[in-house]
Amino acid sequence: MTFSTGRTSKVDVLIVGAGPAGLMMALWMAKLGIKARVVDKRADKVFSGHADGLNVRTMEILDSFGIGERVSKESYHRHEASFWNPDKNGIIRRDARAPTSQPDLSRFTWCLLHQGHIETFLLDAIREASMSVHIDRNVMPSALRIDEEQVARANAHDSKQSPGSEGTSKTDDDAYPIEVTLRHLSEDGATPMQRLSNLGDRLHGSDATDDNQAIFDCRSGAINRALELQEETVRARYLVGCDGTHSWVRQALGEGYEMVGETTDSIWGVLDIVPVTDFPDIRIPCTVRSASEGTVIVVPRENHLVRLYIQLKEVSTGSGAADRSKITSEVIFRTARRILSPYSLDYHYIDWWSAYQIGQRSGNRFSKLDRIFLAGDAVHTHSPKAGQGMNTAIQDTYNLGWKLGLVCKRVLRREVLATYELERRRIAKQLIALDQKLSQLFVGRPAKDILDETGVTMAEFEKASRMNKMFTTGIGIRYTPNLLVSIVEKRHESPPDDGSTQNMSDEDQQQHLALATNCQPGTRFASHRALCQADARPWELHHRMPSDGRFRIVIFGGDISRPPQLALVNSLGAWLSVSLQPRFLVLSMPGAASKFKAARDPSVIDVLLVHSAPRERVELLTDLHDVYHPFDDKLGWDYEKTFADGHGRAYRGYGVNDKGLGAAVVVRPDGYVGLVTSLDEVGRDRIGKWFEAILRRG
Amino acid sequence: MTFSTGRTSKVDVLIVGAGPAGLMMALWMAKLGIKARVVDKRADKVFSGHADGLNVRTMEILDSFGIGERVSKESYHRHEASFWNPDKNGIIRRDARAPTSQPDLSRFTWCLLHQGHIETFLLDAIREASMSVHIDRNVMPSALRIDEEQVARANAHDSKQSPGSEGTSKTDDDAYPIEVTLRHLSEDGATPMQRLSNLGDRLHGSDATDDNQAIFDCRSGAINRALELQEETVRARYLVGCDGTHSWVRQALGEGYEMVGETTDSIWGVLDIVPVTDFPDIRIPCTVRSASEGTVIVVPRENHLVRLYIQLKEVSTGSGAADRSKITSEVIFRTARRILSPYSLDYHYIDWWSAYQIGQRSGNRFSKLDRIFLAGDAVHTHSPKAGQGMNTAIQDTYNLGWKLGLVCKRVLRREVLATYELERRRIAKQLIALDQKLSQLFVGRPAKDILDETGVTMAEFEKASRMNKMFTTGIGIRYTPNLLVSIVEKRHESPPDDGSTQNMSDEDQQQHLALATNCQPGTRFASHRALCQADARPWELHHRMPSDGRFRIVIFGGDISRPPQLALVNSLGAWLSVSLQPRFLVLSMPGAASKFKAARDPSVIDVLLVHSAPRERVELLTDLHDVYHPFDDKLGWDYEKTFADGHGRAYRGYGVNDKGLGAAVVVRPDGYVGLVTSLDEVGRDRIGKWFEAILRRG
Repeated sequence: MTFSTGRTSKVDVLIVGAGPAGLMMALWMAKLGIKARVVDKRADKVFSGHADGLNVRTMEILDSFGIGERVSKESYHRHEASFWNPDKNGIIRRDARAPTSQPDLSRFTWCLLHQGHIETFLLDAIREASMSVHIDRNVMPSALRIDEEQVARANAHDSKQSPGSEGTSKTDDDAYPIEVTLRHLSEDGATPMQRLSNLGDRLHGSDATDDNQAIFDCRSGAINRALELQEETVRARYLVGCDGTHSWVRQALGEGYEMVGETTDSIWGVLDIVPVTDFPDIRIPCTVRSASEGTVIVVPRENHLVRLYIQLKEVSTGSGAADRSKITSEVIFRTARRILSPYSLDYHYIDWWSAYQIGQRSGNRFSKLDRIFLAGDAVHTHSPKAGQGMNTAIQDTYNLGWKLGLVCKRVLRREVLATYELERRRIAKQLIALDQKLSQLFVGRPAKDILDETGVTMAEFEKASRMNKMFTTGIGIRYTPNLLVSIVEKRHESPPDDGSTQNMSDEDQQQHLALATNCQPGTRFASHRALCQADARPWELHHRMPSDGRFRIVIFGGDISRPPQLALVNSLGAWLSVSLQPRFLVLSMPGAASKFKAARDPSVIDVLLVHSAPRERVELLTDLHDVYHPFDDKLGWDYEKTFADGHGRAYRGYGVNDKGLGAAVVVRPDGYVGLVTSLDEVGRDRIGKWFEAILRRG
Repeated sequence: MTFSTGRTSKVDVLIVGAGPAGLMMALWMAKLGIKARVVDKRADKVFSGHADGLNVRTMEILDSFGIGERVSKESYHRHEASFWNPDKNGIIRRDARAPTSQPDLSRFTWCLLHQGHIETFLLDAIREASMSVHIDRNVMPSALRIDEEQVARANAHDSKQSPGSEGTSKTDDDAYPIEVTLRHLSEDGATPMQRLSNLGDRLHGSDATDDNQAIFDCRSGAINRALELQEETVRARYLVGCDGTHSWVRQALGEGYEMVGETTDSIWGVLDIVPVTDFPDIRIPCTVRSASEGTVIVVPRENHLVRLYIQLKEVSTGSGAADRSKITSEVIFRTARRILSPYSLDYHYIDWWSAYQIGQRSGNRFSKLDRIFLAGDAVHTHSPKAGQGMNTAIQDTYNLGWKLGLVCKRVLRREVLATYELERRRIAKQLIALDQKLSQLFVGRPAKDILDETGVTMAEFEKASRMNKMFTTGIGIRYTPNLLVSIVEKRHESPPDDGSTQNMSDEDQQQHLALATNCQPGTRFASHRALCQADARPWELHHRMPSDGRFRIVIFGGDISRPPQLALVNSLGAWLSVSLQPRFLVLSMPGAASKFKAARDPSVIDVLLVHSAPRERVELLTDLHDVYHPFDDKLGWDYEKTFADGHGRAYRGYGVNDKGLGAAVVVRPDGYVGLVTSLDEVGRDRIGKWFEAILRRG
């Protein structure tokens, strides 16, 4: 092969892969104005097939970037599931219905929408946020080099500026220790067949064709036709591999980054069709277990589409190698038809089909030297049936993106980057454990063997589904104590994963947790409604907490129509404004197109007040400290920082006593609770220490 | 002047003016695939200033085109108002607060957002709907001719096909009786100064500079520089004048189309600024009456903006002619500052300013020969303070658009076009009457004279505001009986405006009104939530009733788990499907980009079923007649036509007895109730006659 010598460029963050994980990463970069580049070997986004499930937490995350409603509007909304089993005559019957939405959990419900739409919305949001991110398609990496000495030098430089010391040199982090060679592909070589292609490209598992290899095969052909490849070198501060199951980045990292786990025997087919059927529950997610033909899982989608997962018994082999020649869309469809019999099943339109073997694997290491990170399918794979693939991928980089962005902006200490692996690896392991259990159930014996003592009972299946449910909503996720999650839960059970020094006595801890019983550190801060003090508008608090890279201290100020409580809140306000905020760097925002720009960049620590006094008994500008309505020379007072708990619902929702002394909840930029404490001097001290441990001095 | 001879073209509907009224008209045309053209002399949409209030009904209308949430998201939401008056020392004090939102009225609240944003959203929706509409800027009409003989011939042809007769000739309405000459302007000539321009362009009232004239003056200058004007001729079936206060179309219609009404003495200034102030209620709409400096009306807006309406006492003259030289943004601002004293008022950013004299006028005729129509400011003007300008304009063409579109598609009889003037003229008159009352109050004596027996009391002011409120939400609007509104209310009070023959005995009428007490003919059909039978998703019923040109019969089927009630509903279903729907033309839809297209065009009469049985006791496909889940060869069954009143809320909301015999409500394409009747044979007969009177036979 011949390669033209290309240019060399620098970028803060290089992202490999423009799927949901890569684009979420890119979105954070755009929001924070970090110079980033996404490269993807595909020529375009995904147009059909692939992932489609968006759990409740992912919906909240998308909403925090302003695209939740757009997604919700186009999606199928899941509210109910049903379970079909054979009756004593072997005819499938609806055994049970179960509601799947939990109204108190979130204002969103589980949504189903094709991955391609999500990618479009993410791309739109990236473009809107800033011009700092470039997305290059038809490009893939071919060589990776990391200068470990440079990494060590930068770390040594950092550690000189220990927590508590002041001032920061502007040149302490000029390292670009990563060098990646990129190859620019032609249109032909870059687009793997996305539609109705043969099985080879689709089978998950170790024996599946490697897409990368396929592309280079293809390129070889191109070379033979005397085309020239463009090559370039990129130097980056950080590299994020969001490049899927066959991750090039992971493979380039080599030893220690192997995926560990198993491939199950069974083969599943997937069909995305607009069904023409008299099966009654075709618009409800359901599991249909036939007497002897296997199982179909029905997943309704947007736009009349339904996805069917079909167990392909005849092509499953004990040796783990499937006989691919036997698998066609026709075979898959006919199997589905037999399982759903006596109901009819037909289609006029097929959108996509595929087949896969379930592989349940994860990597033990999600990062290298806190400079290179792996996310999404690149570091954990599992069955698609729990609908967790796209969710976990998006949530991986949603966790990583703000940390990396704020480190690049020199606002956050680099030590915080270690929390990515700490937090997300545990979630991946939990997910795979759950998936293993669920997959066994799905591929368990045929229903006629259910009563066999070694088989799977209906009750067992439903129990596993229920257990699964809370975790799979994404709301059940809980990060264990670390630099960013300040709590010591009953120490004997789960010791902190890191050397966090923020220990409290158990007694103190219990007291502080009682301040806001529904705001547990490590879980996501929920959204409840409160009325804007200035204009009486009801707001979902999440809508005042967008993903903009800022930490937030939500002050539950209690009944501030009582003078002592008002004094407590204002005294805390003075401390926040005079002592805390100025200690750290401000958060410079990428230049928005708005003509209504603030005079100053905001503090990286935002303050929101939610009081429980009757709204009309509070005068925003005269009663409350400025920090609760910050002043800007150009824009005047900020009227959207102080809220009244109009109907008492917010305090109930967060578990705060509306007659008590209040509570302060520190919320991370990704919406997870970092710390819960009191409004008094003890609380101030804890808040101060929490931020000192992670933020650089201004 | 020299003009090049231009081309001649044909179009179904020519719309003059691309403001909110013209764009709403264009949106209907795009939705229905009607060949239409919008011409506007301005080079671009409005960027600042002008209208900003969106009442609850307008929000529902925008939402019916899929842009409600986008508007809501960017808007200021009005929830509260306050009233400031001088205390005994002459210092302004907050006298009262009042909630302005009525949660039971609509899921929307009053929104404030700049007209330019609304225009953008309308333009986006037009582009998305179809390619049938072209918008030409820098173009204005210069001559209008209507061929009355051709109109008469077409009408005569129509009347041969009397209601009830079958078949329709494809060539009966090939008339293009309207001929309009258009002039294409250069960029320079077409853009009136939009920002900080002098008063001349802004003063409403008879003595204001005519924009049209101003542009031709400008053109004369251009001609002197040897430029050539392009001229073309357009022949149209219909012409709609949405060209504002100085409507060229209205003027071209000449005698009989004069605006009738008065101009008040007082001059008001308007400022759109980002205020820097310590006035506490700057984010609440409020009226501030000072002791001796006049009145300021505060209207908060999106994006930190606040609009201030300021009474300019010193420039008001008794003779009606204002001394313009005295009015600058500085004068207006200083007046506002004096009124708001002792509070501070400053600004860094000013978006727009203007001054106007209140003119309250309307035309007696809204149409000519049912071929040329006037809408919006072209036919009614009033003070902007009630926030009704843009709303009434949008609602005018929302009323006209579907009628004209369906007539163009030969689905609707042309006689229906007469209902536009019948329905909208009455609303304009009511609006102006209210506005006159309100304006008098606003410009009434200074507060110190309030106690004077001839002055305006606070109580009087608040009462007028309350009366105003229901009307101005847009929900209070009620069309009186006509071809499209089948009801005879207590005849002695309000006789029908037209010769509608659909009379019922008073007793029958009362019985039928009792079927659905909150669905009164002539008012808008409200939105309540019901669960989709097929998938348990809760839907706002409005979201299943988009503005797509279809009539809807909402069947409140009652408790269909009871066999006799199910039989009644299914028997009605058979009649709807076999006897009613096939009688009329289907509604061909403009080619959408979707790959999921139905095999057939739908009936112009859509059927929705809302039952009150427990959802799990109904099987959609096997219990209910096909009309409640219509089949399509390509898409299978339609799962989104049948709903269960999950929590009993929908039946309560619509005023239907959930244990009773049900009710059928005919809803027009604009969401207004046309007819309420029973599910039995009497009801069928009424439904059949109602549609026979307005739809052409298929």
